[in-house]
Amino acid sequence: MALPHASSGQVVRIGQQAGESLSQFSSIALAKTEQLELIRMTVPAGRALPEHAVRGQITLQCLEGEVAFDAHGRTTILRGGELLHLEGGAPHALRANADSLLLLTIVLAS
Amino acid sequence: MALPHASSGQVVRIGQQAGESLSQFSSIALAKTEQLELIRMTVPAGRALPEHAVRGQITLQCLEGEVAFDAHGRTTILRGGELLHLEGGAPHALRANADSLLLLTIVLAS
Repeated sequence: MALPHASSGQVVRIGQQAGESLSQFSSIALAKTEQLELIRMTVPAGRALPEHAVRGQITLQCLEGEVAFDAHGRTTILRGGELLHLEGGAPHALRANADSLLLLTIVLAS
Repeated sequence: MALPHASSGQVVRIGQQAGESLSQFSSIALAKTEQLELIRMTVPAGRALPEHAVRGQITLQCLEGEVAFDAHGRTTILRGGELLHLEGGAPHALRANADSLLLLTIVLAS
């Protein structure tokens, strides 16, 4: 699903929409600027994102559902209403324990 | 309320807690790293934050409530489940239309 990126000051709906199913994988870039990229993801239960790393720091916020997040040699559980940040370059992976809605923020500045 | 900053990979609860009132102003730095600062704010209805600017880009997410956000010469309404980003240096102000819970992310990288 291609959407125009939000401009500075423009409101974006990130919460679960009425009638929206989280049982299909999706990944939408809400905004991308010089310093930030904002990505909204729906991840169905059982779906895993294999280990990877990004250069910049990230924050990962769980809006709905539950994911198991692997980083720094341990697994942490991230539930709706919770957030974590991760230092740049740290390998990480996740698996959805339930149909989940996630907001990923990536710092692009070097 | 002083809390230790979250470390990389540590889960932080940002949603409204059971029994938590949003009718008192609070501002808590959840994390501060080289690249990011994460601030959780509760802003009671009627409370305003006067115009100011920060150097880096920000995202402002409304978790609960409703705020009127002034930037770029216009006022936009930000409600629970909505988010906006703002370019670095842009003057902005806000007023809470209802008791609100906000997550502010500031990019500190130059």
